Amino acid sequence: MPEYKAPLRDMSFVLNEVLELNAHYQNLPGCEEATPDMVAAIMEEGAKFSERVLSPLNQIGDQQGCQWSEEGVTTPEGFRDAYQQFVEGGWPSLAHDPEWGGQGLPESLGIVLNEMVGTANWSWSMYPGLSHGAMNTIEAHGTQDQKETYLTKLVSGEWTGTMCLTEPHCGTDLGMLRTKAEPNDDGSYRISGTKIFISAGEHDMADNIVHIVLARLPDAPEGTKGISLFIVPKFMPAAGGVGDRNGVSCGSLEHKMGIHGNSTCVMNFDEATGYLIGPPNKGLNCMFTFMNTARIGTALQGLAHAEWGFQNSLAYAKDRLQMRSLTGAKCPDKAADPIIVHPEVRKLLLTQKAFAEGGRAMIYYTAQLVDKVHQASPEERAEADGLLALLTPIAKAFLTEVGFESANHGLQVFGGHGYIAEWGMEQNVRDSRISMLYEGTTQIQALDLLGRKVLMTQGESLKRFTKIIHKYCQAQSDNTGLKEFTDPLLTLNKEWGELTMQVGMKAMQNRDEVGAASVDYLMYSGYVTLAYFWARMAETAQQKLAESDSDKAFYEAKLTTARFYFQRILPRTRGLVATMVSGADNLMSLDDEHFQF
Amino acid sequence: MPEYKAPLRDMSFVLNEVLELNAHYQNLPGCEEATPDMVAAIMEEGAKFSERVLSPLNQIGDQQGCQWSEEGVTTPEGFRDAYQQFVEGGWPSLAHDPEWGGQGLPESLGIVLNEMVGTANWSWSMYPGLSHGAMNTIEAHGTQDQKETYLTKLVSGEWTGTMCLTEPHCGTDLGMLRTKAEPNDDGSYRISGTKIFISAGEHDMADNIVHIVLARLPDAPEGTKGISLFIVPKFMPAAGGVGDRNGVSCGSLEHKMGIHGNSTCVMNFDEATGYLIGPPNKGLNCMFTFMNTARIGTALQGLAHAEWGFQNSLAYAKDRLQMRSLTGAKCPDKAADPIIVHPEVRKLLLTQKAFAEGGRAMIYYTAQLVDKVHQASPEERAEADGLLALLTPIAKAFLTEVGFESANHGLQVFGGHGYIAEWGMEQNVRDSRISMLYEGTTQIQALDLLGRKVLMTQGESLKRFTKIIHKYCQAQSDNTGLKEFTDPLLTLNKEWGELTMQVGMKAMQNRDEVGAASVDYLMYSGYVTLAYFWARMAETAQQKLAESDSDKAFYEAKLTTARFYFQRILPRTRGLVATMVSGADNLMSLDDEHFQF
Repeated sequence: MPEYKAPLRDMSFVLNEVLELNAHYQNLPGCEEATPDMVAAIMEEGAKFSERVLSPLNQIGDQQGCQWSEEGVTTPEGFRDAYQQFVEGGWPSLAHDPEWGGQGLPESLGIVLNEMVGTANWSWSMYPGLSHGAMNTIEAHGTQDQKETYLTKLVSGEWTGTMCLTEPHCGTDLGMLRTKAEPNDDGSYRISGTKIFISAGEHDMADNIVHIVLARLPDAPEGTKGISLFIVPKFMPAAGGVGDRNGVSCGSLEHKMGIHGNSTCVMNFDEATGYLIGPPNKGLNCMFTFMNTARIGTALQGLAHAEWGFQNSLAYAKDRLQMRSLTGAKCPDKAADPIIVHPEVRKLLLTQKAFAEGGRAMIYYTAQLVDKVHQASPEERAEADGLLALLTPIAKAFLTEVGFESANHGLQVFGGHGYIAEWGMEQNVRDSRISMLYEGTTQIQALDLLGRKVLMTQGESLKRFTKIIHKYCQAQSDNTGLKEFTDPLLTLNKEWGELTMQVGMKAMQNRDEVGAASVDYLMYSGYVTLAYFWARMAETAQQKLAESDSDKAFYEAKLTTARFYFQRILPRTRGLVATMVSGADNLMSLDDEHFQF
Repeated sequence: MPEYKAPLRDMSFVLNEVLELNAHYQNLPGCEEATPDMVAAIMEEGAKFSERVLSPLNQIGDQQGCQWSEEGVTTPEGFRDAYQQFVEGGWPSLAHDPEWGGQGLPESLGIVLNEMVGTANWSWSMYPGLSHGAMNTIEAHGTQDQKETYLTKLVSGEWTGTMCLTEPHCGTDLGMLRTKAEPNDDGSYRISGTKIFISAGEHDMADNIVHIVLARLPDAPEGTKGISLFIVPKFMPAAGGVGDRNGVSCGSLEHKMGIHGNSTCVMNFDEATGYLIGPPNKGLNCMFTFMNTARIGTALQGLAHAEWGFQNSLAYAKDRLQMRSLTGAKCPDKAADPIIVHPEVRKLLLTQKAFAEGGRAMIYYTAQLVDKVHQASPEERAEADGLLALLTPIAKAFLTEVGFESANHGLQVFGGHGYIAEWGMEQNVRDSRISMLYEGTTQIQALDLLGRKVLMTQGESLKRFTKIIHKYCQAQSDNTGLKEFTDPLLTLNKEWGELTMQVGMKAMQNRDEVGAASVDYLMYSGYVTLAYFWARMAETAQQKLAESDSDKAFYEAKLTTARFYFQRILPRTRGLVATMVSGADNLMSLDDEHFQF
């Protein structure tokens, strides 16, 4: 039976020792309550809940899936109970405004908590995860009345929420959406249309579901400029609870590759009553406000599957006896050596470890930026906003790509047994596969990064980050013990800017050059960004080792893993550089009709 | 509904125009019957059977899976009928000796046929595929009596066969196996033990199943030197058919990630009657004789999933409308452009195409070597045997790795829809995942290549192949039109030898250096080998274009795809070189107990 243990030591290393979040919280208005003791207590409680309540339901969720009937959708055994415990523990309200019943703790703490919840059971974590998106939307764009009616219930966790964007003929291209909103005399709207791929669209875990729906007003302009946002509750709110059923229902559940425990719904809106939220025709702009947070939520999924795969394949590699070490028997008293003695098994393990631990630093760093965007001084806020805009597509696409790679490495450690359901490793692969698709595919993130974030700002947002890296390396220039990391990082950081120039120049002649370079550019950016975090983690480890003897093995392992990352993973940039600058012609010149004969 | 269309034009391009198999058959004793007309007719019939009978059962197989009961295993709807048609068509006997009822056609033709059968429905193809292994074993090591009793029934397809190697505690490390064989007075043996992961171990498709079982004699030496091979039939043979049930039964079916249509069985041998095949204690040697063929069969799976993913994602990319081209609308009369206009979608398609078509050339080339090993003059035979030994682990591991990558690209083209079962793309990913595990994992193939095949022969077997590539490039040195391919190929071919020397020198100090370099070395070897075949295909296309105007678009597409491979895929070698020579220390220095805290 696979298991999950929250890596509290490593989480606290990143939070407190590398990123110094304790100081960050004390400097941030409204976050002062997040004292070190409070943070530690929350992490410990979150770990217990994730390990004891959610983790044992992960495989059950996969096996049972969700069941559809005319009456609604039943979630897997135990999911509903776990959600009740989650609500009773006050977890949904953690990072929300006290005005609506929240605990007013920083968003970044919510993300740290989500790491544990999501790694223990990703499918389950999506129910509260989707609520979070709905809450943020109502909090930013809702009226006082809407907040009192819906937001308080979402914050308490009594109700959950969804985001209803996709339609059968449009996913990426939301400008094509057709769901209609026709005005009623009382100021409400009749919403009609079909939405697909609605995660947590229908379930039995809460008394009501609040759908945030993209639809078109009758006189709306075509394309993305004619989309408005509506609140459409499953049950109409009534004094102290819920009243009549609204005209929204789940038509069917999708049969998916993974995340079986989460209900992925076709939602039919049949003149459902809805309420406009935010200004008319500005729905997409309102959505974009929260796209970054949602995408960091998905980036987390990359970390989750890497960490889960790592933990379980490590346990197996220490236990499974097969063959002898190439350098002679390591356990001569046993029938064979444990497979962790084999270099290529260690490579599979270390790759997962480097991505999980590095990804943790990357995500906690962006989480810190989210706090600043919400609560820092206007100047700091603008700086944080620019950095977050740049790092979001990198974190989302890069971490989900390497998360899927890691999940596959975890499976590979098990050999043939990895293909068998009972070990859980193949579920980890299947569950992780969706992360490169939803919230914008890797290809869309890559266009967002190179086209919108980098080239459209004339490289400004990139320079903001490369300057941080450059200054960091310069500040360490006398630190000879760190040179094995800072020297290559400095070189790559410079190359990053040069490659951007090179691609940008080509793009001025031919826009397809942006598309043709984009995924390679994004992956390159990801490897360099992760190298920065690994250098910082190595630096912290080096410092701690110099200061005292405590936790020596932990810090030495950190240095060894940083070395592994720089020597075994970072050279992947060499191939990416060559393909990135190879031009659009090798992709565009083949006639559509000549791909196949 | 996903579809498969046998790529007959491309298959014939590789067979007849690049590798000139027609001439090869005419020069090979016993293969003269494989005239061009005969080959074409077999391919056309095989295509029809694969497209019309097997392809429609592929998704059904995944959905229904195999069902276990006390009475036996039921295969998915239609599987049994399809097998009857396969037998009636005489397909099982294609490449077997006429002495036992075979048609005496070359093995390579059987592999070409298997490409279509396996691409249409991999799970189904494994039933006859496993029989093939059993047939080869009996043909090479069986007595006249065993051949008359078992081989004739397998060749006709009336019975099927299996290979029973793996046990719960040993997969790779067969030296640890425990299944016992105790002699009876009549010369037979009582076989007792449990085998797992037995593909096609029990099913309802044929009257009898002939298990080839690895077991230990009572006085057998420990380890791999004490393993013997036995024939254990499900039913005892009787005049004209089958008699009593033998003491072998399927205890349960594994719940797997994919290939649900194939029964993966736990087989219990309870004093089952078995017959020694080959000399006592030489079972593993006997098995190794056919390992190469079995591994080429698995290499084919890489090609199969790349081709299937390519065909279906290409159709979708031409059909799905989403967003506009970066260079302006291509279909202004439609609501959006088909997604094939986007560079990164084309990259996903071209990557699949380059691996499928290149993989086809690599496999057909090794298939030709198999023919030579069986039927050429002793001198040619030795040369072919050496080449085959080198290329087998490359083809098996490299093609299954890039096949899995390709299957994922196919899914990615579909965006969110790729994650939904009905499109079939996620099944293609799940089905392909096992290919990197069975018949020796990628890691085992890599050790076989670098350790056994290359270093243990002091590089002899590698030199045999690099010399072929070198001569080829030299012969083309005046061909300026081919320089974009032959120049980088020549450089890489030289580097291949140098890297081998470098790793070999290190390995003399520390055997772990072999393991630490092995997977990177194997993947590097795969990319260079595929570059050789792409250069040859480009050369043929160039020639044909110079000769006449017929099929111009086909040959130009071939050149464009070769260019894509050299510019967009081959640069991956740059990262591999850096990591391959980075040494074992970054893998071995972390203490087993310090991977996690």
